[in-house]
Amino acid sequence: MIRVGAVNIDTSHPLGFGEVMERDNRARYVAVYNDSFRDHGEVEGFIRRFGLERRCDTLEELAEAQEVTVWKCHPHGSMSMHIWAPELHFLDGKWYLYFAAGTREDKWKIRPYVLECTGEDPLTAPWKEHGKMQCAAEDSFSFRSFSLDATIFENKGERYYVWAEKVGVGKQISNLYIAQMETPWRLKTVQVLLTTPDYDWERVGFWVNEGPAVIRHGGKIFLTYSASETGAAYCMGMLTAEEDADLLDPLSWKKERWPVLESSPEKGIYGPGHNSFTTDSEGNDIMVYHARTEKDIEGDPLYNPNRHAMLMRLRWGEDGRPVFSFDS
Amino acid sequence: MIRVGAVNIDTSHPLGFGEVMERDNRARYVAVYNDSFRDHGEVEGFIRRFGLERRCDTLEELAEAQEVTVWKCHPHGSMSMHIWAPELHFLDGKWYLYFAAGTREDKWKIRPYVLECTGEDPLTAPWKEHGKMQCAAEDSFSFRSFSLDATIFENKGERYYVWAEKVGVGKQISNLYIAQMETPWRLKTVQVLLTTPDYDWERVGFWVNEGPAVIRHGGKIFLTYSASETGAAYCMGMLTAEEDADLLDPLSWKKERWPVLESSPEKGIYGPGHNSFTTDSEGNDIMVYHARTEKDIEGDPLYNPNRHAMLMRLRWGEDGRPVFSFDS
Repeated sequence: MIRVGAVNIDTSHPLGFGEVMERDNRARYVAVYNDSFRDHGEVEGFIRRFGLERRCDTLEELAEAQEVTVWKCHPHGSMSMHIWAPELHFLDGKWYLYFAAGTREDKWKIRPYVLECTGEDPLTAPWKEHGKMQCAAEDSFSFRSFSLDATIFENKGERYYVWAEKVGVGKQISNLYIAQMETPWRLKTVQVLLTTPDYDWERVGFWVNEGPAVIRHGGKIFLTYSASETGAAYCMGMLTAEEDADLLDPLSWKKERWPVLESSPEKGIYGPGHNSFTTDSEGNDIMVYHARTEKDIEGDPLYNPNRHAMLMRLRWGEDGRPVFSFDS
Repeated sequence: MIRVGAVNIDTSHPLGFGEVMERDNRARYVAVYNDSFRDHGEVEGFIRRFGLERRCDTLEELAEAQEVTVWKCHPHGSMSMHIWAPELHFLDGKWYLYFAAGTREDKWKIRPYVLECTGEDPLTAPWKEHGKMQCAAEDSFSFRSFSLDATIFENKGERYYVWAEKVGVGKQISNLYIAQMETPWRLKTVQVLLTTPDYDWERVGFWVNEGPAVIRHGGKIFLTYSASETGAAYCMGMLTAEEDADLLDPLSWKKERWPVLESSPEKGIYGPGHNSFTTDSEGNDIMVYHARTEKDIEGDPLYNPNRHAMLMRLRWGEDGRPVFSFDS
């Protein structure tokens, strides 16, 4: 689960983050995001990305907080292009930064990687590379193809890694998988398929399930994810499990038939997705997500930079389920 | 659904079929099976296979009934090797023979094919080739990789095609998919994932779900399948759906956590699987399946010929579920 104090932002337009700031919080926040769309001067426009962090006392201040570069992409080879979906987690007393990256030589050869902070302060201490995330010894399948968007959560003393990986020949399908973790950089168990794009709303443009994020409430584990291509059709689905269940058993996870959050033309918000969860200083659950303010997108949605980071106060229904509403 | 009168046998040892015949039936049966293991004289031993049929008045007589060759594999190119998993279906007033085949040039390039009988009697009328099974126009995924074991059933006026197809790069995973059919040789809808090997018992040797077969009872649709490599670990799993449910919605299908039929050392039966369903002349449900009588197998289980066709009388529990028992 996203820890209090860490905000994981997936956005290609971090300056947009402040646009929806409206709450006065008192927590101390560190946000991690990539910075590709500020470097248009680079070859091919989107090659150079950086892991960056900001620290501030309120979520509102995050947009204007000091930026620190903690890691730069490699000039070539692994981790040299498409530096995507960074997440910051505090595990076993250390900060870890999970992200996905391709290579300049093969930009779609995207795999998950791990950085570890060598000191206590993630903004000042050096970060070391752990290389590619390692699957279990007996796992012949994980991280062999396009794989990204890892998130981490804990339950009943076990730590879980959830990620998206594509299958298929030719055009591919992006599924979500889960496994238990042995260490912050190695899995203990083989992959288990959590969800594949089953429905029309998960199959617009591309068949995609990606961007998993976990929040717990009332003995339940809610796992949200994003579906379809990253334009106006991009939306959020959800799986639910009991925390006492075997989380490596797909039967423990109930998938929603319909999206839990999607575009709202009335609000002028399009393609909400790739969210994470945090809390404000008063303990309210906050969802950080990205969305666009234009329905029509110039060029490939993947490379259109107008994905704004937004915040939503998450409320809980009487049935114990999260209520995702742009009015919150 | 397998129609009364047609017995679909997956076995590499058709002579074994009679060994377990123990019932006196009066129906007229036609069985289809491949004949690879009788042609050891051929190059590479397993290249030449034939679609064959037998007709008789009782299931017991099938083992000794007249054999008729209805189709021969091609000398090269598509349908020239690994002629597998034939099934006979009577659709829209005609007989169709569904099977999977590879090529001599690439023996693992296995895809599903369709034959249509041009006359009323499947034993005497010529069969014509419909070529490879066609997916829906908007389907970018189906039949692009190793795909086989198709079966067909009908529900509420729609016809469904269920098949196994592998995904992944390098070592692959065999899943089961479902789609509605437009014609006997073309699908109407894009693929929907029904089941993937989630559990240890589906992951022995290879991660495999294959050999789907459907039987209906009490308003429910039971879809059995086979899991793991074809040795002693080979076993049967099951999905269940209500016949009123949307069968293209994976949420409509409930998967069993454990196998519904597996090896029985006490009975000396190993690796039961790749079943189909028929009825005897008294209307009793009969399951036709294959299994081995040896626990240890010489060489690659896939090519070991000792898979015997067997029969099991299927009984129904008070809960409306099928009871799979070697004692039946």
